[in-house]
Amino acid sequence: MDLDWLTVPARVPDETFIQAALARQQNLTKPPGSLGQLESLAVRFAGLQQTAEPQLERIAIRVFAADHGVAAQGVSAFPQSVTAQMVANFCRGGAAICVLARKLEADFKVVNLGCTGETPEHPDLIDARIAPASGDFTRGPAMSREQLAMALNAGRDQVAGADVFLGGEMGIGNTTAAAAILAALYQLPVAAITGRGTGIDDRVLEHKVAVIEKALVLHNLKRQSPLQLLQTLGGFEIAALVGAYISCAQRGVPVLVDGFITTAAAAVALAINPGIEPWLVYSHLSNESGHKLALDKLRAEPLLSLDMRLGEGSGAAMAAGVIRQALALHNQMATFAEAGVAGAD
Amino acid sequence: MDLDWLTVPARVPDETFIQAALARQQNLTKPPGSLGQLESLAVRFAGLQQTAEPQLERIAIRVFAADHGVAAQGVSAFPQSVTAQMVANFCRGGAAICVLARKLEADFKVVNLGCTGETPEHPDLIDARIAPASGDFTRGPAMSREQLAMALNAGRDQVAGADVFLGGEMGIGNTTAAAAILAALYQLPVAAITGRGTGIDDRVLEHKVAVIEKALVLHNLKRQSPLQLLQTLGGFEIAALVGAYISCAQRGVPVLVDGFITTAAAAVALAINPGIEPWLVYSHLSNESGHKLALDKLRAEPLLSLDMRLGEGSGAAMAAGVIRQALALHNQMATFAEAGVAGAD
Repeated sequence: MDLDWLTVPARVPDETFIQAALARQQNLTKPPGSLGQLESLAVRFAGLQQTAEPQLERIAIRVFAADHGVAAQGVSAFPQSVTAQMVANFCRGGAAICVLARKLEADFKVVNLGCTGETPEHPDLIDARIAPASGDFTRGPAMSREQLAMALNAGRDQVAGADVFLGGEMGIGNTTAAAAILAALYQLPVAAITGRGTGIDDRVLEHKVAVIEKALVLHNLKRQSPLQLLQTLGGFEIAALVGAYISCAQRGVPVLVDGFITTAAAAVALAINPGIEPWLVYSHLSNESGHKLALDKLRAEPLLSLDMRLGEGSGAAMAAGVIRQALALHNQMATFAEAGVAGAD
Repeated sequence: MDLDWLTVPARVPDETFIQAALARQQNLTKPPGSLGQLESLAVRFAGLQQTAEPQLERIAIRVFAADHGVAAQGVSAFPQSVTAQMVANFCRGGAAICVLARKLEADFKVVNLGCTGETPEHPDLIDARIAPASGDFTRGPAMSREQLAMALNAGRDQVAGADVFLGGEMGIGNTTAAAAILAALYQLPVAAITGRGTGIDDRVLEHKVAVIEKALVLHNLKRQSPLQLLQTLGGFEIAALVGAYISCAQRGVPVLVDGFITTAAAAVALAINPGIEPWLVYSHLSNESGHKLALDKLRAEPLLSLDMRLGEGSGAAMAAGVIRQALALHNQMATFAEAGVAGAD
């Protein structure tokens, strides 16, 4: 399958709208700079959306779900069956991201890229199954080149017209895949980037680190491109997120990156196509212990820090509410002239 | 005027509802603890609101406005006339807090405790004028005992049935009053607690510190009670916030404390009636430089950190959106049993 689209240049934020938004912020009835990050968010979204009135009304949320062969190595606190069970929970509206999506009145869909368990038929569930699970990367590559392409393209196909795109993920074992990717991509010590995921104890954490270290030795990763690295260590949902993020930047749709796993996807996407950087807005600092290190490598400043570590896109959804308010302030506040308020002495 | 009501005991959060909420959080379809502060907020509000389903639908926002005699000392970047001009802006819906209040569908009112400029007649403006401004505390006490009582009672009278109370403030010169109060209450170096307010430069900041230091020498503050200290250094809007916070805790209404000035009011309120502590939820860390120190003294952990320093209740309004989502998650997520999802191994 053709993957040339991955390196098509991203759109460039519009400097004219950025300057106009900066000027407007100086004229709104508040001391200059006093809305802090809410001001810089409004300026940034004006440039990304190429408009004087940036909006966050149409929020697209896509949760990508897939199972991981590496789950067989006993790296999670939960059994693999939970992936498909959570897909059903997403369909019935009982998961955290569903509650947040309803409150945001977002366009919410789940994309099934391959789970070992049974999944229901449901209007909110998109069938993009590649295989029952990715391969166990401690024994061989996680996916074939064809499977990688299918996952990347499935992510790309989920991007459509929206004010912002939020990608989430579900897949037992996927913090193991994400940690492996980040360790390989940035040549980090595995123990520094690997965390407790769904909540494993010290013994399982030690085992998880050893599993990843073994895999990094098995594969000759130093010679691999970011795309090959994704094929070797990734999961289908992580690859789909990579495809979605790159496609968003190419189509001019801002992205809210969620937590640890989506940050691993963002890191790979940036390594493939560095021009997408302006389009990635980092939502929150996850409590998953490697997230801070990954964000530091990306020089990313997350908006929120609420000790969340759930995934599903839940941190991005919390940030969406904050950004919506930031844009409302930008669009609806009165200027000094409109309000007849005196400026600074 | 009678001020005995200030020391009437606060309500006590309900431990039964706290324990039930903790148990529910363990059963929701997510790894235990993975929603971080969103979980602890839900548990806290269940105890405060004494319910299994805490809500943040009815949000009461009251912005207390007043002028300060100390503004004559040249401590602000803006002229004193801005207080009344901003009151008019609040009425017309052009200020930041108005935009946020609309988005939250909050019950929004402005309380005029005394401004030197003209203020309009408006259904959202409550007339509680005490004097055109408080006295200049570099020359004498900021208010009489009677004025103090009027301000405290005006705050108390603004508290009514709501799921949460957000107090905001507007008053040119009020970071000077707040810094003076905090310096005196906690015996802090004035330079450590005094910040740039609306955005003064180094020269004016140095002058602002000297003005406060002079006032602290003038008054014999070590012998003063917290209430006397409020009378000596406070503004009408700060005293109204003190009255409102204490009344909220007595009536069982949770409070979102906003930024630097409201934290000074919270500090005085706590010194008068320590039992109100569970009712004060700290919204955000302000960029006003003394706020961190004040929060540390109160052992308070703010929810957000967005580099805001506007006041008006704007940081509290941002936090309200986050808490509303936290409570929706608590009430609406499916349990493991309801969703047929397996628990941890």
